[in-house]
Parts: sequence; structure tokens; C-alpha cells
Amino acid sequence: MTDLEKSMESMITVFNKYAHDGKNGKALTKKELRKLIETELPNFLKSQKNPNTVDHIMKDLDQNKDDELDFEEFMPFIAGLTMACEKYCSMSQKCKKMSID
Amino acid sequence: MTDLEKSMESMITVFNKYAHDGKNGKALTKKELRKLIETELPNFLKSQKNPNTVDHIMKDLDQNKDDELDFEEFMPFIAGLTMACEKYCSMSQKCKKMSID
Repeated sequence: MTDLEKSMESMITVFNKYAHDGKNGKALTKKELRKLIETELPNFLKSQKNPNTVDHIMKDLDQNKDDELDFEEFMPFIAGLTMACEKYCSMSQKCKKMSID
Repeated sequence: MTDLEKSMESMITVFNKYAHDGKNGKALTKKELRKLIETELPNFLKSQKNPNTVDHIMKDLDQNKDDELDFEEFMPFIAGLTMACEKYCSMSQKCKKMSID
């Protein structure tokens, strides 16, 4: 398996670790989502000032409003976070380069 | 680092491995995208009947039509593939369960 394939598999594995068996397959309740974030993304919540962050995330992601997140509703959260990380990393590299030049 | 954080970092690392330094930061040309897919997702292209798959992917992802994919244009491709994999895995598990019952 390549690194990219391992990453893709790992995201599914992590989701399934916290999700329960819902009517239409694996899904996260808000409580399970909070547990996943606190355990798998420990720095994320600490960096958030708003104590209701998980509520807002759940509301934004829960497209069909069934109070659960299936994987298709969950994945955009990880994609968004990854894009934010990449943006932050590339900007801080630019700053480092400018301070060296 | 948790498994989820490693996955997120790994997707950024893989992208940067194939991307060049474009005007607005790291970006993939179609050629670089093809190289990434052939190397990091070897089974994906083999499973595609259409020889122009990479052209279609590029066209779909290149939102600003600059013939390059920045990370924000690339990430939805990985998210989509991961969702397709998760759906395939959960359906094949359901089939296994039905055949056992």
C-alpha cells in the first residue's frame, strides 16, 4: 500500500472506531464526534475559543439533519481541516523564506 | 501525532512531493497529477476503462481553469475517492453478513 492509500484507509478506520452501527450504516452522534475530535485532533478543540465548536461542526456537517454523521458527511470536515493546515504550513514557509532573503 | 493527524500530514506531503512551485504556491500540472496517480494510486487508473481519465479529473478539479491544481483543488479528489472506498467497503461487509445469516 502507498502512503496515500494508507492515509485514505486510516481515515476510514478512525471514523469506524468511533461510529456506531446506524440505520444506514456507520454514523457518528454528536457525542461520538466530540470523542473523536478530543482524541484524534487534541489540539484542534484547544485552539477553538468557542465552547460550542462541536455543536457548530455537527450542524454544518449534518446535511440530512438526522443528528448523525455518516462518512460522506464527516469527510468534508477532515478535507477542510487538511486544506487549512496546508495553507498555514505554506504561509509559514513563505514567512521563513522572506525573513532569510 | 495521532493516526488521523498523520493521515492529514501525509496527504499534504504526497501532494508536495509531486507539485512544483507555482505562482501562488505549490501546484500540480496535468503531467504531475498523472505521475502522482500512477505512483500513489496504482490500482485506480487500472480500474478505469477510459484512457482520458486523468484529463477528465483535471478538468473537473481545476476550478479556476489555470491548468494547475493547488491543494484546495486537489483535496476534493482524495476526499471523493476515500468516500467511494468507504462505501464499497461497507457494502461488501453487508454482503458478507447477508451470506452468513
